[in-house]
Amino acid sequence: MELYGYWRSSASYRARIALNYKRLDYNYLPVHLLNDGGEQHKQAYKQLNPNELVPTLVDGRNVVHQSLAIMEYLDEKYPGPALLPGKAANRAVIRAMSLDLASELQPLINLRVQQYLTKQLGVSDEGKSAWLQHWFKLSFTAFETSLNDNAGTYCVGDEFSMADICLVPQVYSAERFGIDLSDYPCLREVYGRLSDLPWVAAAHPSKQPDAEN
Amino acid sequence: MELYGYWRSSASYRARIALNYKRLDYNYLPVHLLNDGGEQHKQAYKQLNPNELVPTLVDGRNVVHQSLAIMEYLDEKYPGPALLPGKAANRAVIRAMSLDLASELQPLINLRVQQYLTKQLGVSDEGKSAWLQHWFKLSFTAFETSLNDNAGTYCVGDEFSMADICLVPQVYSAERFGIDLSDYPCLREVYGRLSDLPWVAAAHPSKQPDAEN
Repeated sequence: MELYGYWRSSASYRARIALNYKRLDYNYLPVHLLNDGGEQHKQAYKQLNPNELVPTLVDGRNVVHQSLAIMEYLDEKYPGPALLPGKAANRAVIRAMSLDLASELQPLINLRVQQYLTKQLGVSDEGKSAWLQHWFKLSFTAFETSLNDNAGTYCVGDEFSMADICLVPQVYSAERFGIDLSDYPCLREVYGRLSDLPWVAAAHPSKQPDAEN
Repeated sequence: MELYGYWRSSASYRARIALNYKRLDYNYLPVHLLNDGGEQHKQAYKQLNPNELVPTLVDGRNVVHQSLAIMEYLDEKYPGPALLPGKAANRAVIRAMSLDLASELQPLINLRVQQYLTKQLGVSDEGKSAWLQHWFKLSFTAFETSLNDNAGTYCVGDEFSMADICLVPQVYSAERFGIDLSDYPCLREVYGRLSDLPWVAAAHPSKQPDAEN
């Protein structure tokens, strides 16, 4: 299997954790999101993923993009430790909490949106920081409530799941953007447990071959 | 079953199509997103959905939010016409194309983001219109390519799926925002077929009890 990704991309980070958790071997193919106008916009990559976003998973003849679709695909194709354990109701909670981060927060704070704010709207660094703070606060406040309702050892009960895989990169980027996490004790507690797991730790951006300082 | 939604919300529209397609009866409970500061922010609704977003599905003891999680839940709990037909590879394409719209486009153009642009960043109507045009163009251009690769009668082959359910509300909102669709012939063709389907037509915003002119 081949995973096209970028060390610091949250969605790539999710895919790496999922592959590690399932002990699936893969070649990691870095796509630099900034160099040379962004390698994700080059023709070769666009043919693989018309959305010009990372990650993309190539598994034989199957080409899958979107990190949540990649995780669902892996869970169907390669059972073993489940990314979506339990019955329909539990799986629904896992999916909803995953989407709360991957679909409501991450798309608003990613590189291309930040670039638009700066270049097209002329938003200052302070304005951009306020934008990030705003969406993180809204999202993490709701996520903290969901954790209070659902968390055990991990985000949903005591089994590791896709929701955990979505939380880890989001906390990583929160720290990177200087978001204050003191209002989210349950989130910090769960994150603390997650970051020590070997399959999570190995997926950390700093451990990737394309990591920069 | 109860579905909390708003007539013009894309995510509520998705949930309605899915429920109709599976011929599941439900009570529709309108949550007005604008009146009185937004009913989604009231305590009663927040207890059901801490994200203060619509839709929320209540199925007995199970409370599910996030439209994609609702559709996956319905597909697991109530088989019958599948929202995710086929094997893992086909399901991956359906999920990826669904997320391309639901996760990469919709969160950038929804009400709360538009409100932030106006109120916090002082973006003009022209600037807001350019914002909408930009994200629609990026997303629909990629989606058109995906359709060229995958579409048959519907978005992915000849079977109706979750990808179609995500496309319909997105075209509805594109038309509402005056987005020019002439560059997306395949998208328009598939949409034309979709909008006539009875389970799609019945879910149209204008047919809902909370519809306004």
